[in-house]
Amino acid sequence: MLEVEAKFAVPDPREVRARLNRQGVRMAVRRQERDVYYNAPHRDFGKTDEALRVRYDDTGVTVTYKGPKVRVGNAKAREEFNLAVASGETLEAIISRLGFRRTAGVSKVREFYELGDVTVTLDDVEGLGTFIEIEILTEEGKEDAADRIGVIAKELGVDGPPIYTSYLEMLLSKR
Amino acid sequence: MLEVEAKFAVPDPREVRARLNRQGVRMAVRRQERDVYYNAPHRDFGKTDEALRVRYDDTGVTVTYKGPKVRVGNAKAREEFNLAVASGETLEAIISRLGFRRTAGVSKVREFYELGDVTVTLDDVEGLGTFIEIEILTEEGKEDAADRIGVIAKELGVDGPPIYTSYLEMLLSKR
Repeated sequence: MLEVEAKFAVPDPREVRARLNRQGVRMAVRRQERDVYYNAPHRDFGKTDEALRVRYDDTGVTVTYKGPKVRVGNAKAREEFNLAVASGETLEAIISRLGFRRTAGVSKVREFYELGDVTVTLDDVEGLGTFIEIEILTEEGKEDAADRIGVIAKELGVDGPPIYTSYLEMLLSKR
Repeated sequence: MLEVEAKFAVPDPREVRARLNRQGVRMAVRRQERDVYYNAPHRDFGKTDEALRVRYDDTGVTVTYKGPKVRVGNAKAREEFNLAVASGETLEAIISRLGFRRTAGVSKVREFYELGDVTVTLDDVEGLGTFIEIEILTEEGKEDAADRIGVIAKELGVDGPPIYTSYLEMLLSKR
């Protein structure tokens, strides 16, 4: 499964919420997420464009591996594996013992909106501001998915350039 | 928590079972375990005496990290973390993507016997034969625990030398 997504800065989240409401789309769920990122001892994930993340939210603890991003039109695609685990403390102990090092934490409040097979997420990121992510999970047809994302962004009044850096990269480059 | 344990070869498992029965100890559980071991890309766990294991049994899937063994009297002690995960397939995909390589698989049928705070395990290991493991989990008093293990081994009629190599090491050295 490939995730095709694009992210844009949102100067005024109230405007995006109002447009979603006018389209009859209601918020599906609002969630606080605390993420901890790790780097590998044998290669630099900042250079290989990989990510190893431990996420704490109200559904529990999830470890995620993301492979290198591939740009597709105005969107990006990458391999992703998500695994629910029984304990974040034990997971982080194992990851540390294996030689991986904590690089940064990202905390955000996310609002999720579902538009058929498209997920729109409005993120209020601690230390960075507000962003919108538009995501389609697809087995194929990546170009089609990228086109559709562009159309949806316009309908929601988002007209800035798509952002290809992650919140982690933005936070690291602010340091 | 430290695991203090010793392992011995068992020429005749029926003799050990008979002695446990005579002491009034009944088998607590019998379990089939399939283990997959991984080695790290940046250091050799065979040399650092660490282990990263994915275990499949009828309770589910567990990932375990074990630190280097420390010999204590006739027993060994090591740091150990166990984590239940939702999917073995996803876990192994993440471990592989992080650069770790499968080294070997160990399949065994284990019989567990509980004697207070001591766990006795009778293992029938595919390709290796039968072994007994005597284990005490302790916060301190490692020397005490090692002494008690020696006494229990004698009571069960096990008189061979304690074995400090793991099933994984035995299987790898047979290759």
